[in-house]
Amino acid sequence: MALVVQKYGGSSVATPELVRRVAERIVRARRKGHDLVVVVSAMGKTTDTLIRLAGEVSENPPPREMDMLLSSGERISMALLAMAIQDMGYDAISLTGPQAGIRTDTSHRKARILEVDTSRIRKELSEGKIVIVAGFQGLSTEGEVTTLGRGGSDRTAVALAYALEADQCEIYTDVEGVFTADPRIVPEVRKIPVISSDEMLELASSGAKVMEARSVEFASKYGVEIHVCSSFNEEPGTIIKREDPSMEKVLVRGMALDTKEAKVTIRGVPDRPGIAAAIFSPLAEADINVDMIVQNVSEDGFTDLSFTVNVSDLKTALALCEGTQARIGAREVTADEDIAKVSVVGVGMRSHAGIAAIMFRTLADEGINIEMIATSEIRISCVVRRGEGERAVRALHRAFELERE
Amino acid sequence: MALVVQKYGGSSVATPELVRRVAERIVRARRKGHDLVVVVSAMGKTTDTLIRLAGEVSENPPPREMDMLLSSGERISMALLAMAIQDMGYDAISLTGPQAGIRTDTSHRKARILEVDTSRIRKELSEGKIVIVAGFQGLSTEGEVTTLGRGGSDRTAVALAYALEADQCEIYTDVEGVFTADPRIVPEVRKIPVISSDEMLELASSGAKVMEARSVEFASKYGVEIHVCSSFNEEPGTIIKREDPSMEKVLVRGMALDTKEAKVTIRGVPDRPGIAAAIFSPLAEADINVDMIVQNVSEDGFTDLSFTVNVSDLKTALALCEGTQARIGAREVTADEDIAKVSVVGVGMRSHAGIAAIMFRTLADEGINIEMIATSEIRISCVVRRGEGERAVRALHRAFELERE
Repeated sequence: MALVVQKYGGSSVATPELVRRVAERIVRARRKGHDLVVVVSAMGKTTDTLIRLAGEVSENPPPREMDMLLSSGERISMALLAMAIQDMGYDAISLTGPQAGIRTDTSHRKARILEVDTSRIRKELSEGKIVIVAGFQGLSTEGEVTTLGRGGSDRTAVALAYALEADQCEIYTDVEGVFTADPRIVPEVRKIPVISSDEMLELASSGAKVMEARSVEFASKYGVEIHVCSSFNEEPGTIIKREDPSMEKVLVRGMALDTKEAKVTIRGVPDRPGIAAAIFSPLAEADINVDMIVQNVSEDGFTDLSFTVNVSDLKTALALCEGTQARIGAREVTADEDIAKVSVVGVGMRSHAGIAAIMFRTLADEGINIEMIATSEIRISCVVRRGEGERAVRALHRAFELERE
Repeated sequence: MALVVQKYGGSSVATPELVRRVAERIVRARRKGHDLVVVVSAMGKTTDTLIRLAGEVSENPPPREMDMLLSSGERISMALLAMAIQDMGYDAISLTGPQAGIRTDTSHRKARILEVDTSRIRKELSEGKIVIVAGFQGLSTEGEVTTLGRGGSDRTAVALAYALEADQCEIYTDVEGVFTADPRIVPEVRKIPVISSDEMLELASSGAKVMEARSVEFASKYGVEIHVCSSFNEEPGTIIKREDPSMEKVLVRGMALDTKEAKVTIRGVPDRPGIAAAIFSPLAEADINVDMIVQNVSEDGFTDLSFTVNVSDLKTALALCEGTQARIGAREVTADEDIAKVSVVGVGMRSHAGIAAIMFRTLADEGINIEMIATSEIRISCVVRRGEGERAVRALHRAFELERE
């Protein structure tokens, strides 16, 4: 008999009918003899609706009250799910984040889980109950209700799986798992059966959706193996786990296309120590995440410097860079939103040379110009014109034969 | 500086715009220098919507989960109200029933308040905050979330006013106060400025709406004076308080019409000891509330017995009486739904004779037949044909000159 933590996202419980379907799935797992702890998000777009309501009564809703408001969403879905399970003849109980022992720091709206006191959950499990836990919320060290921010319910599931030493942690969502590329771009994509946390992280931060990066990082940190699968069918999904030696056999695990970045270029930058710090410190202080950075070789004591940021941060980044430009005596600052970042990811890159060469050759054969290049140990990313992004992905998917088992 | 407890019902906070209007009213009271504790119900029809959702996932939702579900409603309204107040520049904090120290027994869906631990509320008040408290909910002695049942938010307000020794307890609602009769029936009704708890109780249990009987009883028990007024204007409402000697000067305070009762008649009942017990014990066991009981004089050892019950209990009551009929050898059981109960209420009846005489004379002059009569110390009720109920109310309102100050 295994202890299984399952997590169902908002789209999986968006209607009473879907709540019953999830309840049936839970009951099936129960019939196999498993102990079950089920983390559930708010129904469908509940959280968005609540945020909108808050905007209608307040220009700048205080975070403590926002958390009070938002935490009501999971109360509804978890109580309905517990009811539906009991209606099917199985004992179940719903617990709020605070009741389930999720202890967080005091940062409202983006709290971090500090520890999980599993005593209440263990007590309910020992009484034979299926335990439903509100995702996305906890109790702060000051006794206030907090929420965990984006992807919070995934983190609740991972934290519970770790604290309970669960045998499995299953994340149910509206996709079937992690694919070699976005199926809307590449028709011949293949589902990835097993992926390492590092690969998943690189894919997530390169534009692949499925699971939010912070949750993958969290799972990896605590060594929790995640099984991502669809709540709408019975197909096996994708297992995300710590790297093992067998994984290096595959050169490229998957790829991603990111069209949400923009490029900022500062030209005529005096090439002297401290210049990079002068440029990037103001961005860091403004909490702007800089992704790729490329600096040209210097010519006559001046250089050009380009970097990418999220499109939503572009305006602020430009304003900051224009300030810096005046201070350091650079020539000009320009922005380019018409870019796409194509990334290939695989732990096999560590032990196999030549992946970059294949990537560059493939893009060249397609007549696609590479504007920026960045690499990590297990990832190569190229910035190309936005209009050429999807064609680049399809060509690379073929070149690395990702459609093959 | 007074400590004021205010309570706003669901219709007063049904939309974000109304939430802001309530916030403005609270801020006005704050500007007068009052300390404020504000109890709020769920927005508009939220609770009904949640009950409907529960019905869609479960045939018989377990009460513990129902309370978890229903208690989410006030979390939304109270957080929005606290946000709206803060947006107007005043400090506010929302507290759930458990956070506010409302301790109840373990009866889910109809919990009773056992005590209020006011320490958290007092702490927030001492920091200059307006404290918003979720109505209708508490924490049971077993640490579970409970709800208080119908009129629960009113009881929360009364319990807080008592525990905090508040100077005022104001119940805001969608009516302007308590009237001498239903304004839809009698155009010349007058608002009652002050009414005793006993009168209010008799009116409430005689079909008048405004405030639920249990809450009035609760307030009376703890000696809390309630001011019922409209959340949509600034008019003074009705004060409900313990009787004082000045109140007896008024003969009839107000009247009510109840069209939700039905009459059951058992004919040919053997007139011997223990018969009433045989008839009414099964009804009591089935939790059916019997209102008026009338027994005719006996003839040849047999009598007829009539009583009224709520229409919703009629079917069960009939079935039980038919069982009893067979056992005790009565002749027949009949039901009559076509009745109305007209009641006049006033503590002045205690010291003034002749109220009943005026009532019977007035109905006789109108050609309205009286089918049953019941009295308490401060109330006289007559059952008439349903079609004649409204005319009876109008005639009695004139006869007792209730339109006069």
